[in-house]
Amino acid sequence: MEKIKGVNLGNWLVLEKWMSPNLYDGTTAADEYYLPRQLPKEVYEARIRTHRAEFVSERDFARMKAIGLNTVRIPVPYFIFGDREPFIGCIDELDKAFVWAEKYGLKILVDLHTTPMSQNGYDNGGISGVCKWAQLPEEVDFVLDVLEKLADRYGHRKGLLGITPLNEPVSEEIWTSMDVQKRYPPADKELAEGSAPISFEWLKGFYDKAWERIFPHLAEDKYVIFHDGFRLHAWKEYLTQEKFKGHVILDTHQYLMMAEMYGCEQSLEGYKEYIKEHFEKEIEEVNSYVPVMVGEWCTFNSYCVGMDTKGGQSALNGVDAAGAKTVSEEDKRTAYMEIAKATLAAWDKGAGYCYWTWKMLIDPANEPSWQGWDSWDLGKSIDLGWFPEHVK
Amino acid sequence: MEKIKGVNLGNWLVLEKWMSPNLYDGTTAADEYYLPRQLPKEVYEARIRTHRAEFVSERDFARMKAIGLNTVRIPVPYFIFGDREPFIGCIDELDKAFVWAEKYGLKILVDLHTTPMSQNGYDNGGISGVCKWAQLPEEVDFVLDVLEKLADRYGHRKGLLGITPLNEPVSEEIWTSMDVQKRYPPADKELAEGSAPISFEWLKGFYDKAWERIFPHLAEDKYVIFHDGFRLHAWKEYLTQEKFKGHVILDTHQYLMMAEMYGCEQSLEGYKEYIKEHFEKEIEEVNSYVPVMVGEWCTFNSYCVGMDTKGGQSALNGVDAAGAKTVSEEDKRTAYMEIAKATLAAWDKGAGYCYWTWKMLIDPANEPSWQGWDSWDLGKSIDLGWFPEHVK
Repeated sequence: MEKIKGVNLGNWLVLEKWMSPNLYDGTTAADEYYLPRQLPKEVYEARIRTHRAEFVSERDFARMKAIGLNTVRIPVPYFIFGDREPFIGCIDELDKAFVWAEKYGLKILVDLHTTPMSQNGYDNGGISGVCKWAQLPEEVDFVLDVLEKLADRYGHRKGLLGITPLNEPVSEEIWTSMDVQKRYPPADKELAEGSAPISFEWLKGFYDKAWERIFPHLAEDKYVIFHDGFRLHAWKEYLTQEKFKGHVILDTHQYLMMAEMYGCEQSLEGYKEYIKEHFEKEIEEVNSYVPVMVGEWCTFNSYCVGMDTKGGQSALNGVDAAGAKTVSEEDKRTAYMEIAKATLAAWDKGAGYCYWTWKMLIDPANEPSWQGWDSWDLGKSIDLGWFPEHVK
Repeated sequence: MEKIKGVNLGNWLVLEKWMSPNLYDGTTAADEYYLPRQLPKEVYEARIRTHRAEFVSERDFARMKAIGLNTVRIPVPYFIFGDREPFIGCIDELDKAFVWAEKYGLKILVDLHTTPMSQNGYDNGGISGVCKWAQLPEEVDFVLDVLEKLADRYGHRKGLLGITPLNEPVSEEIWTSMDVQKRYPPADKELAEGSAPISFEWLKGFYDKAWERIFPHLAEDKYVIFHDGFRLHAWKEYLTQEKFKGHVILDTHQYLMMAEMYGCEQSLEGYKEYIKEHFEKEIEEVNSYVPVMVGEWCTFNSYCVGMDTKGGQSALNGVDAAGAKTVSEEDKRTAYMEIAKATLAAWDKGAGYCYWTWKMLIDPANEPSWQGWDSWDLGKSIDLGWFPEHVK
């Protein structure tokens, strides 16, 4: 298997407010669930359609190819087929993306990023502070249908790398340690009642079903890519089953902002040590029994922001970088580049990576609250000399 | 004066339908004048605001800097200050662009690209097939007011290179040879009645007034940049007046698609000869008495499209590239790169250039009608290996 060198098309088909705040103008919505409920139908439609047509186009794929990437991970919503009002489907956009990917020799990883009533309660899970999908059998079946339709549609496309049936199902540990409902407060407390993390046993059962619905539709060279549910070391027994051999990849998401919460020192040396001692060693170990990729990561860190972001909380969570101390451009460039190189070396011990994310519309030049946040943007990071110009 | 190495931010604040057709969905509008007249107010507003927020952002300026550009020419509409219903002003966007330009050490050329009832009748002049502005004294005064306000607002900004008071006022010769009202048919023939090109005498009179309104507001290192009105060789006497010395640049727009109409052979050798014998020699000659820049040009040509585009007419004008013969990727790469290098050498005899354009949303991979048209996109051209990666 060729090493995966990829990037996420975050915020294209699954919105995240902080990445294109303009779409949320005039509303108090914090997530994609409430946006169409707060806007007149035709305004919602005009914003979404314009966003989808403009945020990503063929030229982005030309650029990805030019910098040496071979993969693009595309988060898609459960309403992709247009059968969940008030949302607007986006299968046409994904169809176009396959044509672009194939034109430029890139592979697409289709990532089901949201579910009805959410699998994690994150703002990027579609509805903040709510995590009830796994308790709703009909909605679980709905998601399985979506997955089968995606597999059927793209399973033999040259441009397909594989399908991720579920992004970031939240574990008990993360649910508690991140204090998800405090970080992403539900807009409707009643609706959020009964929210709970997703157990390992339940998740394995769902993955069994997802496998059965997806795998039969896939050509030989495609993968089912299972997110680890924030339990990187739990999958040895499950994923080494004979049926999976050669057909699965374990996906784990590793961010320095989370490492900081686990005690990583907020300095360049601290990050480099953590990357070497944790990221690299853990990936190497897990990869010894199952191919493991890092489907989300970035060079973002509190040291370069100039303040403790308390696990990557932004102005939207009340942690405003406008008051941070100034980090010189030179120090930032050095730190980001060294972190990038060390981390790429770590991921090289596994199946590869997808950076989070390709592009964002935050404007740190005009909005000091966002200073330091532009390292989430791979394209910009390369142009600023924060990341190798041609990825390895 | 440092050589100008720039690019146009076409289609950001002044729309061109072919560059973001999505904005025109569900309408028959061919230009920016009829768009708000065919859409419900809130839909128009949602589309325009989303477009402006997404089409260009800080990251574009980071990329321009990375590839070695030093200038960005920004076409702006006459309604930039928001005082011409039903259009929406965009001075906030231009303000932001100045912050971005200054952050990355780029200079902005503010180009007044449209006028009420138009100075050329082009689709990109705001209203197709109508050219009556110069005959409307109140509207001429309105434009002079806009120019003075722009000069007053940005005249001492570090990020300002200069101001172009009027883009492409059409000459008698071009009006006839391009058959403007046939190429860009007016939607309302009555409104178009009385349209006429702009005489050289009238234009000089307008430039006198524009100079008086702009120049007093400019810092010493800024320029008034006069478009040649498609009369590159007519300006010696006017622009060598003592008052202009060191403060003006002549702007000329030179496209191979126009050269083709003047008899340039549609082959790589034909283009190279034309570039050497016409572009380079003419720029050198004019630059001997006044600094002359090429404010618009690109590598687009009929040979690489695979068919005669009859002066750059597209599917929107009924000349559909879907039926063109296939030009191999290798031949295209060779031709575009050689044309780029030869043309850059030609412009090097003058004050510099701005490529038209930075970015487009056409989708030739999914829409064969647009094959060959992506060379208008400088960012994409660089990523495809059609243009030097670091401009000189």
